Amino acid sequence: MEAYMIFRDIAIIIVAAKLLGILARKLNVPQVVGEIVAGLLIGPSVLGLVNQSDFLSYMGEIGVILLMFSAGLGTNLKDLKKTGITAFLIALVGVIVPLICGTLLYMVFYGFSAIGSHEFFKAVFIGTILTATSVSITVQTLSEMGKLKTTLGTTIVSAAIIDDVIGIIVLAIVVGIGTGGENTNISVVVIRNLLFFIISGIGGVILYKLFKRLDNRYHHTQRIPILGLALCMALSYCAERYFGVADITGAFVAGVILCNIRDAEYIESKLNINSYMLFGPIFFAGIGIKTNIQGISPTIILFSICFVIVALLAKVVGCGTVAKLTKHSLNDSLKVGVGMMTRGEVALIVAQKGLSVGLLESVYFTPVIILIITSSILTPILLKFLYKRETRAV
Amino acid sequence: MEAYMIFRDIAIIIVAAKLLGILARKLNVPQVVGEIVAGLLIGPSVLGLVNQSDFLSYMGEIGVILLMFSAGLGTNLKDLKKTGITAFLIALVGVIVPLICGTLLYMVFYGFSAIGSHEFFKAVFIGTILTATSVSITVQTLSEMGKLKTTLGTTIVSAAIIDDVIGIIVLAIVVGIGTGGENTNISVVVIRNLLFFIISGIGGVILYKLFKRLDNRYHHTQRIPILGLALCMALSYCAERYFGVADITGAFVAGVILCNIRDAEYIESKLNINSYMLFGPIFFAGIGIKTNIQGISPTIILFSICFVIVALLAKVVGCGTVAKLTKHSLNDSLKVGVGMMTRGEVALIVAQKGLSVGLLESVYFTPVIILIITSSILTPILLKFLYKRETRAV
Repeated sequence: MEAYMIFRDIAIIIVAAKLLGILARKLNVPQVVGEIVAGLLIGPSVLGLVNQSDFLSYMGEIGVILLMFSAGLGTNLKDLKKTGITAFLIALVGVIVPLICGTLLYMVFYGFSAIGSHEFFKAVFIGTILTATSVSITVQTLSEMGKLKTTLGTTIVSAAIIDDVIGIIVLAIVVGIGTGGENTNISVVVIRNLLFFIISGIGGVILYKLFKRLDNRYHHTQRIPILGLALCMALSYCAERYFGVADITGAFVAGVILCNIRDAEYIESKLNINSYMLFGPIFFAGIGIKTNIQGISPTIILFSICFVIVALLAKVVGCGTVAKLTKHSLNDSLKVGVGMMTRGEVALIVAQKGLSVGLLESVYFTPVIILIITSSILTPILLKFLYKRETRAV
Repeated sequence: MEAYMIFRDIAIIIVAAKLLGILARKLNVPQVVGEIVAGLLIGPSVLGLVNQSDFLSYMGEIGVILLMFSAGLGTNLKDLKKTGITAFLIALVGVIVPLICGTLLYMVFYGFSAIGSHEFFKAVFIGTILTATSVSITVQTLSEMGKLKTTLGTTIVSAAIIDDVIGIIVLAIVVGIGTGGENTNISVVVIRNLLFFIISGIGGVILYKLFKRLDNRYHHTQRIPILGLALCMALSYCAERYFGVADITGAFVAGVILCNIRDAEYIESKLNINSYMLFGPIFFAGIGIKTNIQGISPTIILFSICFVIVALLAKVVGCGTVAKLTKHSLNDSLKVGVGMMTRGEVALIVAQKGLSVGLLESVYFTPVIILIITSSILTPILLKFLYKRETRAV
């Protein structure tokens, strides 16, 4: 392929993604949905302007790594310690319930299969997609209502972050076991995962101290983001190459290692420019480009509807119950549940991982996209309703 | 290739490029030289950690486009009008003399060949590499001495910018004719080039007005750099695809179109982050990775020495003579000549273009790199000497 063909593809993708991203935001739908629709329009399904190429899919992979690194950088370990056990329990149950419900949903549709079989892990993967909360819509809504800095607001945000960490561990294990063939020794996978998290934990402390020293010496210089980016790339590589752990897990861990240095936000701001201008749009539009509209059958439509309902209820019930048990009022418990039910980029990234390791078919991107749209529209409406009802009750 | 191999390559490249870039700057050599040496070290010539791949070369191509776009954005059309005819003449002669001298040098070494033959254009290409001045070292030196804002300083900077524009036209024509085979109709190439510059001139005025309006409405928003990047990619593509003009010419023209909108600097700052963090290092390290040390023969070493001498003298004599003829003192004329003799990134980008269209062999990267190093070291020393001599004379 001539290099100039790449410039053509990139120009079309970034313009289309930006225009439809802006449109999406005007319609109160997350920007990524607009970018996916842009991909659908310019891809083979509709206009056929851009086809998926190796180059574009590698660029998209870099986009994913950058997004996960950024998610890791956004984790504030000190804040997490403060909110303590409640947020942890909400997150834990908020991962387990959707994981089980998603798995069961797939089995109800496509038949129950033996534990350990490939079909079984395909079912578990549907559950895995449902684990990660995307807190941005909730943060935005709470912030608009001036409720973000309340105890309840902090609990929701912390739970959503812990939920990301637990979700990434679940993903690592599911991918590790599910892709190893039917004779995978589960204990080997678990040990590898444990080893990865232990080694990156110990190495992380050393790297953190090293970066902290660098940061003090070269605060706000180009060096810090460049070395941060290199760490992100290196850990993504090592995770996958030496431990069989998903590369996105490595990127996320790299972000967590650096999240408490002074320049964490500076790194994030520099990388976000890379991410939002080029790699992000190429990843999300790429999902649209790969989506095959013809593959959408009545079964998939029915599955999508059930998938969305299960996804939303599993978080509301799971997280809400823990909130109620930890002495929140019914109304506050519902707020926690609704605040935790939104899904976003990470669900798509997990789905993409599933596609690349053979645990998910591309047709299941459709339910994930519908889930993101539905949850992003419903959460603000329900949260506002719950807060209003309370005011009236007082 | 697995995606995680890309992360490994990128991590190694950006760390090595940054470290050696910093070292180079400490040794008062341009940072790009450090990055090239980094590529040499990690590439097959020495350590063999990273091999050139399709993906890396596409990333490098994007790096080149971004650098040329950035060079275009740095052109201030209003300032150029002010310095007028003198700077234009200095630039014009400063392009023609090195072009002819470089061509003759190659012919002296490898034999004179018929005008229009492939060998002839290979000779002309060596001349073409010598056309573009890199003004950054001169600007830095003049600025350190407090002489940048003098009439002479402005003349040198303007001439260097005009020199880029003329050089890019020369490159467009040489590539157009030289790659069309021995039966190329020169008039067709010239008409295509004229058409490109006319159409992009007219289209440029319209695009400039459109961007100016967008800029007023969405000043300092993500939209402006994203659309600017898209314009750069689109023009690079159109230049090469529809006019047979080098993609880097399109990128440069895109930069010139946008150089006078209010957000020009903002676009540059956003793109520079992309460029300096990722694409730039991959391009320059890529040159090192591709450089084959074994290919360096005694002839090439001798050629390199002559190449550097011819390159430096051609600019000093060419530009200096025009300065003398336009009523500058001998000392001032020498300053103009010395100020115009530095070469930098653009020479490498032109060389890379020659390699990709088959007008240059990779072994000629070595003389270009040596030229960049030599001129960057000599220019500050000579300029300081010339200014000191003047002070003593007074």
